[in-house]
Amino acid sequence: MGSSQKLNSDLAKERRKCTFSSLELTHLLDGGPRKTADRKAREKFFLEDPELRDRVPSEYLSHKEKYEEAIRKACLIFKKVQQLQEEGKGGMDNFREILGGQLGSAILGDGNPLTLHFVMFIPTIIGQGTFEQQGEWIQKAWNCNIIGTYAQTELGHGTFIRGLETTATYDVKSEEFILNSPSLTAYKWWPGGLGHSANYAVVVAQLYTQGQCHGIHPFIVQLRDQETHNPLPGIKIGEIGCKLGMNGTNNGYLGFENVRIPRSSLLMKNNKVLPDGTYVSSPSSKLTYGTMIFVRVVLVQDAATYLKKSVTIATRYSAVRRQCEMKPGEPETQILDYVTQQHKLFPNIATCFAFQYAANWIWDVYNDVSSQLETGKLDNLPELHATTCVLKSVSTADAALGVETCRLACGGHGYMTASNLPSTYGLVTAMCTYEGENTVLLLQTARFLIKMWQNQTNLSNLPTVRYLRTALDQKTPFQKNVEWIILVLQKTSASKIQLANSHINERIRKGQCSEEAWNNTSIELVEAADVHGRTFIVERFYESVKKTNVTPELRLVLDQLVQLYAVTQALKLSGYLLRFAELSGKDIESLQIWLEELLIAIRPNAVGLVDSFDFRDEVLASALGAYDGNVYERLFKAAQQSPLNAEPVNNSFNLYLKPFMKSNL
Amino acid sequence: MGSSQKLNSDLAKERRKCTFSSLELTHLLDGGPRKTADRKAREKFFLEDPELRDRVPSEYLSHKEKYEEAIRKACLIFKKVQQLQEEGKGGMDNFREILGGQLGSAILGDGNPLTLHFVMFIPTIIGQGTFEQQGEWIQKAWNCNIIGTYAQTELGHGTFIRGLETTATYDVKSEEFILNSPSLTAYKWWPGGLGHSANYAVVVAQLYTQGQCHGIHPFIVQLRDQETHNPLPGIKIGEIGCKLGMNGTNNGYLGFENVRIPRSSLLMKNNKVLPDGTYVSSPSSKLTYGTMIFVRVVLVQDAATYLKKSVTIATRYSAVRRQCEMKPGEPETQILDYVTQQHKLFPNIATCFAFQYAANWIWDVYNDVSSQLETGKLDNLPELHATTCVLKSVSTADAALGVETCRLACGGHGYMTASNLPSTYGLVTAMCTYEGENTVLLLQTARFLIKMWQNQTNLSNLPTVRYLRTALDQKTPFQKNVEWIILVLQKTSASKIQLANSHINERIRKGQCSEEAWNNTSIELVEAADVHGRTFIVERFYESVKKTNVTPELRLVLDQLVQLYAVTQALKLSGYLLRFAELSGKDIESLQIWLEELLIAIRPNAVGLVDSFDFRDEVLASALGAYDGNVYERLFKAAQQSPLNAEPVNNSFNLYLKPFMKSNL
Repeated sequence: MGSSQKLNSDLAKERRKCTFSSLELTHLLDGGPRKTADRKAREKFFLEDPELRDRVPSEYLSHKEKYEEAIRKACLIFKKVQQLQEEGKGGMDNFREILGGQLGSAILGDGNPLTLHFVMFIPTIIGQGTFEQQGEWIQKAWNCNIIGTYAQTELGHGTFIRGLETTATYDVKSEEFILNSPSLTAYKWWPGGLGHSANYAVVVAQLYTQGQCHGIHPFIVQLRDQETHNPLPGIKIGEIGCKLGMNGTNNGYLGFENVRIPRSSLLMKNNKVLPDGTYVSSPSSKLTYGTMIFVRVVLVQDAATYLKKSVTIATRYSAVRRQCEMKPGEPETQILDYVTQQHKLFPNIATCFAFQYAANWIWDVYNDVSSQLETGKLDNLPELHATTCVLKSVSTADAALGVETCRLACGGHGYMTASNLPSTYGLVTAMCTYEGENTVLLLQTARFLIKMWQNQTNLSNLPTVRYLRTALDQKTPFQKNVEWIILVLQKTSASKIQLANSHINERIRKGQCSEEAWNNTSIELVEAADVHGRTFIVERFYESVKKTNVTPELRLVLDQLVQLYAVTQALKLSGYLLRFAELSGKDIESLQIWLEELLIAIRPNAVGLVDSFDFRDEVLASALGAYDGNVYERLFKAAQQSPLNAEPVNNSFNLYLKPFMKSNL
Repeated sequence: MGSSQKLNSDLAKERRKCTFSSLELTHLLDGGPRKTADRKAREKFFLEDPELRDRVPSEYLSHKEKYEEAIRKACLIFKKVQQLQEEGKGGMDNFREILGGQLGSAILGDGNPLTLHFVMFIPTIIGQGTFEQQGEWIQKAWNCNIIGTYAQTELGHGTFIRGLETTATYDVKSEEFILNSPSLTAYKWWPGGLGHSANYAVVVAQLYTQGQCHGIHPFIVQLRDQETHNPLPGIKIGEIGCKLGMNGTNNGYLGFENVRIPRSSLLMKNNKVLPDGTYVSSPSSKLTYGTMIFVRVVLVQDAATYLKKSVTIATRYSAVRRQCEMKPGEPETQILDYVTQQHKLFPNIATCFAFQYAANWIWDVYNDVSSQLETGKLDNLPELHATTCVLKSVSTADAALGVETCRLACGGHGYMTASNLPSTYGLVTAMCTYEGENTVLLLQTARFLIKMWQNQTNLSNLPTVRYLRTALDQKTPFQKNVEWIILVLQKTSASKIQLANSHINERIRKGQCSEEAWNNTSIELVEAADVHGRTFIVERFYESVKKTNVTPELRLVLDQLVQLYAVTQALKLSGYLLRFAELSGKDIESLQIWLEELLIAIRPNAVGLVDSFDFRDEVLASALGAYDGNVYERLFKAAQQSPLNAEPVNNSFNLYLKPFMKSNL
């Protein structure tokens, strides 16, 4: 998209109005000017490679063509990452950092069929393989002489992995495991790249030896011939079909019929089967928790990124789009001047920052706890687990809702693929389900919260729940500051946990078993965990910004964003605040006025704020969101790329339409 | 999909548990056994025609192939409708009734490129053409010798139709209008079928004659040659490209460069241009309101239908899907037994009925008011307009949210195209934008409400706002019945309107002009209209069920649904209820307990309720939702239809993957 076109005058005016330096904020978000420069260099390296551009926009291709194009690009991307590695500019080991979120989806907007090779296959071998196994596999995998994926989920089993059906039965005679899918629901289903791309996989299966089941274990399994790529005997494999999004990821299915693999295929860092079939278990199985938590930590960052993209598109478009005369006879109004439009967009801008700070914080905590784990200290693991569960759940749910709000705020044009908002929604909403379904995760956090509520002795060592001890006793008369909102939210959160706990106890008293009581209280438990998570995000956002060292101009704007996020959350939860924190109707009205003031305050900086996210046009990939604001020219140009528009008359006229129109003459 | 497969045992058990007759409820929803039979005959007539089945599931086709397949089917559908007409079984004039909602989307899941011919083109000629013009065009259009569409929206203009830029300038010498698109933003953009399908269109343009602009008028314009289908000189036409959904509708763009059309092309029922260029206006322009209101009335019904489909799919799937042991050692639990899952689904089941009754009611009112209009009585038009605006807005927004909730409640499998939930969402969310953007519509309702609030003298003749006079004075101590919830909601709604009104006045007092004051109060205005709409839907649902004549078994269940809808709305609005209707925290807790009781009460009838919607499997088009519940078999079978699975090794292996994998050996 050419920089030759001139800037839309409304956008230019918006940028002149901005009261702070977008560049300063970009550096802050990236972690410093040096990191900004590195990012930009990487983006240039990938995005200016003509081989990585679409020949035809992928939405016009058939499903099969999309896959073929995805493989073509995925190989090129890997090649380039290897090149970076050789040049000492990062590489495969920070594959996610290089291509996660923004850059990867700019090149392969609908998913990369080979991602799991680096994100799951290699890390699992490193995490769960012995040194010998690592020696055997890692170099080949690293060089991409083999391509692997990670096959856990089955057609009938997702959340409850202990229920997986695939069996690996040890045959002592041949010293092999025999893999089987005892039913249709046992078929592996969903793994990315499994359909037609990978030739190896880590397969999770129930291990049987000496007539006993020892639960699920990971096995490394060859799926396809390395020369011909034909499925090996007994391997039933294919792709699972079209999805709402991620149609480039080649999600696959996999069934086994007496597939024999050597004993050494079991990844044996933690548990072993000896040649004679003896099962030897190691106690350190908690360590396998790590990967799961890691992925959820990363998803908080991804949620922020998708929302940033969408709100950039919608905010720029709203500055360019004019509709209706606010006063008769005046020129049509920029839709960004409608307060209802500001109310859709500005809280989402604030949310991007709130999630970004939450993501930074949880990343640091994750690294701390991981180092502790290496030394055998497990104390902080339950809190980290509970916190990642709720952060993943709240951030992905709100990001999905926010992306959709942005899309709808762009009216009809937001419905067009060329806006890139539909595809972004397809990607972000998937996060609500994968790596732990959101409701399931909230209930896990709730379980932790209830436990902490019931036993408050150790709370002082647990920063995320420390407030439970004192929150109920706080007096909270209205004050127009974020500290007050945090206190009020904490009191509300503690009350919700207290109430849910009392309802569980009541049900048990009435004769329900604890599982029934839990299930029957689960609506309130989910709500309690959600409020806890939001409270925590507000507090983290407030504390992080307070510590940030920036110019006074930028500080003012960051403070406004903290306030806007806090006020929005308080209003969203106003039903609870009135009930549990003794707020009055007048207090809610004060919050509403505060909200409206903040929208006015942020209005002149709205475009500057989204500019600070510093997305290249290729990353936004949106006719509505490009930096130059030439919305209509870009929409029109995008339409011209439709293969249907290459011919004035489509063949279906002669085949169907004309005979039909003539038939009643 | 064969009926030969046996029924899933969990679903069979659910059906045995049902306490009422699904068939009785089906008849009630259809409007009697006779109407059920007619519907079923129509469904059989269309859906059992092998020519109307997909050869390859359309999601695997390219965009161009999808269009060609859509045209093929659309011609066949029209042929069959003509056949029905000849047999006296309904026809073109109740085209929407025959194919709207369920049946049409079962045949053309992603939209019909010819729909606007019957839904907009012909009705506009009838509504706005003189008898002569009708004589000239209707027969040809009726026989489909010409195919038309309706071109109003432009690239830069949607909501604000007075701002349309396309010009039709009368040239007195040739007695012709000259059509022009003075800018890119003047291009028509969005009309269905405009891209490559229609050869005529009603075009809305600014009429200039004798040097004066007379505002927008409809013209009938030939776009393409009737023999060759080539665009006529000066016509710049094509399709607008891919969208989130409705990729079969062939939405198009259209630009004019000095296109001359005869004077008689102006549809002159209301306004004329004489041969000498004199403009003659008629006073009855309010009548053109009718079509717009009609479409919104129909959308309420469509919203209900989409939600019914989705909740059928999700409820049946939730009865079949088992995940996790609720108690250790027990078999995995049907996910329908998790209270959080019930909370996602059952309120949406209740919402289907609430919207259905609202749709029936507004349809009757629409017909009454239309008859009044014919006799020149316009009194009830503003109320009807305000009511359709808010009903369209609330029903489409909640249906979209409900469909998405159902999709997410199906976990990963809900993300698959084979679930049909993604496509359903694509269709239902579009309704939030088209035919009046929801926020814009809520503000129109708010304008009516504020007017009524300010002048309460005539309220007694206006059934939807009558409550405004007395609601604030009601005493509303908690009672566990729906009448109480209605009173509380009415009090809240009146308070919200009162508060918004006072904020407008306050802002005007402080010196803002009325437009600014309106804009600055618009968040609260939108909220007020939304609460008014929900209040109204609860009340209509309650009153309608009360009047319904059914068996006691069914009455019990309908009453539970009314309660569930009312309680859910009350809890959703609890922040307002606490503020404006003096509810206490204890009252909210009582509502929560009531909600939980209702979920338990409805649980045994959940499958029976969705069965009563009586969707054929072809209409649901969902591997997860079929009547027999063979979820996994159907998912697997659907995957086998992917063209990628037709070959064990995709060509991209030899082209890209193998060379890449060997390159680092």
